[in-house]
Amino acid sequence: MKSILITGCNRGLGLGLVKTFLNLPKPPKYVFATCRNIEQAGDLKELGSQHNNLHILEIDLKHFDAYGKLVTDVSNVVQDDGLNVLINNAGIASKSTRLNFVQADSMIDNLTTNTVVPVMMAKAFAALINKASKANASLPMGVNRAAIINMSSILASIQKNDSGGMYAYRTSKAGLNAATKSMSLDLKDGKILCVSIHPGWVRTDMGGPKAPLDVETSTKTIVETLMTMNESHNGGFFEHNGKPLPW
Amino acid sequence: MKSILITGCNRGLGLGLVKTFLNLPKPPKYVFATCRNIEQAGDLKELGSQHNNLHILEIDLKHFDAYGKLVTDVSNVVQDDGLNVLINNAGIASKSTRLNFVQADSMIDNLTTNTVVPVMMAKAFAALINKASKANASLPMGVNRAAIINMSSILASIQKNDSGGMYAYRTSKAGLNAATKSMSLDLKDGKILCVSIHPGWVRTDMGGPKAPLDVETSTKTIVETLMTMNESHNGGFFEHNGKPLPW
Repeated sequence: MKSILITGCNRGLGLGLVKTFLNLPKPPKYVFATCRNIEQAGDLKELGSQHNNLHILEIDLKHFDAYGKLVTDVSNVVQDDGLNVLINNAGIASKSTRLNFVQADSMIDNLTTNTVVPVMMAKAFAALINKASKANASLPMGVNRAAIINMSSILASIQKNDSGGMYAYRTSKAGLNAATKSMSLDLKDGKILCVSIHPGWVRTDMGGPKAPLDVETSTKTIVETLMTMNESHNGGFFEHNGKPLPW
Repeated sequence: MKSILITGCNRGLGLGLVKTFLNLPKPPKYVFATCRNIEQAGDLKELGSQHNNLHILEIDLKHFDAYGKLVTDVSNVVQDDGLNVLINNAGIASKSTRLNFVQADSMIDNLTTNTVVPVMMAKAFAALINKASKANASLPMGVNRAAIINMSSILASIQKNDSGGMYAYRTSKAGLNAATKSMSLDLKDGKILCVSIHPGWVRTDMGGPKAPLDVETSTKTIVETLMTMNESHNGGFFEHNGKPLPW
């Protein structure tokens, strides 16, 4: 893998994924990390000062009009090699509620950030990822060739939902899973791997302090799992450790 | 079943469902039919002039602030009997596209109408449906007691998606299915049946002229199937003929 772009890297899993990729025995030549506000991303900025293969890009992903410039910025760096991997990690989770407290605006917020943004990012970067796939035509389908990884959640599994509530988050991540499956079919001929990943229940601002996994363990496991994925995983939904999840 | 509210009744499946319920050997005492613009709902208006148990309610369901008045209007009619059934039928389908043509605004439109509206309608009417459930405490779970029926689509089945594309519609109906499952758990204690239904591929403006089913056949089958549903169906996803569908 020569290049990877990860969204939502100011903290939590995004920041953890950036660290994990930078610390690989053979790190990518280019790690692109997006964040909404560079001034509020102190840890990421510090990493940037230590690793000259880390490129920090400031963007609010709800501003779809800004995607063109983002693609150009990445394209200018990777050039003819294209972009190997897009990890749609940026996400939000409105406070969990039962039906009687759900709010329309929180649903629309979650659906926009967690469902629409990853689809529009995949659309924006598809050509550059396709370029990487063609540049690595001898490799099997996988992250070393070309891939789109959507950070989903076990809470998106309709089959596994036995506690209800959480309308904004659950609907938005189930929508994302539906998009993963369509992407995996639309981009199959280009040999671009598309999967949904549940990162585990992780001690982040989103996961809370009671979560059993720390960020480092989750992101290390995710990266190890991604490295093993091939055509047989395309269009699937997996836990951080590679265990398949039902829709 | 004393009362039922169906959304999106100016044409297509909504209008067909209204007709089917009105033509039952023992029709509901009150059939509430919403439409966005009463002036453009000629067929529905004509039905209203023939059936005095049909109450036509004009509302744009994207105006969440208008739900309070809608509930009051229905409540004033049904009073202590409550509302037995809500059918969230109103929906839109943006033109099918592959990833390279998907638009953010069409995704947000579909997600708002097909995912958020049914959840907010369920929230708005939950108390009135709960009242019907309590008023019919001797009946088993089902449409004769209390139910929320979400009109989904086989295109929402992530497992069955083998053709890709259709991001706006597929994500919004998968989101709706996720909501159905949460509703079925949140409202279980109130004995309110919640299911997702695929109406079949029907010759409507949405389904197009090549669809194999006509509206009357689809809606008759749906109503027959709904009548047979009980606790064992709660939280499930079914074809119009009752055949279970995978998420």
